[in-house]
Amino acid sequence: MTVENLAATPSPPYYAVIFTSQRTDIDEGYDRTSVRMIELAESMPGFLGVESARSGDNLGITVSYWRDEAAIRAWREHTEHRLAQEKGNKVWYEDYFLRVAKVERAYRKGAR
Amino acid sequence: MTVENLAATPSPPYYAVIFTSQRTDIDEGYDRTSVRMIELAESMPGFLGVESARSGDNLGITVSYWRDEAAIRAWREHTEHRLAQEKGNKVWYEDYFLRVAKVERAYRKGAR
Repeated sequence: MTVENLAATPSPPYYAVIFTSQRTDIDEGYDRTSVRMIELAESMPGFLGVESARSGDNLGITVSYWRDEAAIRAWREHTEHRLAQEKGNKVWYEDYFLRVAKVERAYRKGAR
Repeated sequence: MTVENLAATPSPPYYAVIFTSQRTDIDEGYDRTSVRMIELAESMPGFLGVESARSGDNLGITVSYWRDEAAIRAWREHTEHRLAQEKGNKVWYEDYFLRVAKVERAYRKGAR
């Protein structure tokens, strides 16, 4: 993943898709697909931002933010994303948890 | 942080506290305090789990899961945690975003 900044989300309410995962050690285009999925998400209606981190070869966390449930549904069902999901299930992820949550409150440190 | 596994949370609904941060390059006990804060959270009523990742010196994401808003409030206001928050504001974090969200749906890969 190549997302290294905090997401400048608007005031709540909005939705968060919290994707936490443990990778297998199989590459097979993982990095390229990760970058492409970020690009694709950014092009979707209702996309508000994404934050992503992975500690060495351990736990990875990607949180994407969306305007509403309809935007999440359209993202989940996008053909190219579905192909990536299938490959994730079969090849890239040893295990994962996907949680959909409604953001009710948010605070950012100071004013920038 | 030393949390490397997916959190075995119960069925929704429950709450997620999504803390995303960019560190300064000042250590001053950061690792020790991180470990202690995880221990402390685990000892609090209503704590359901935590997942944490930091990519090199870039973005860090810690998501903690809680039974309800009252549990989050007690955690936020715990004296030792408040001291850590103050130090985080002054010393450890260049920037951060704290989001409180209600988890409505969750899916885990396969059965383990």
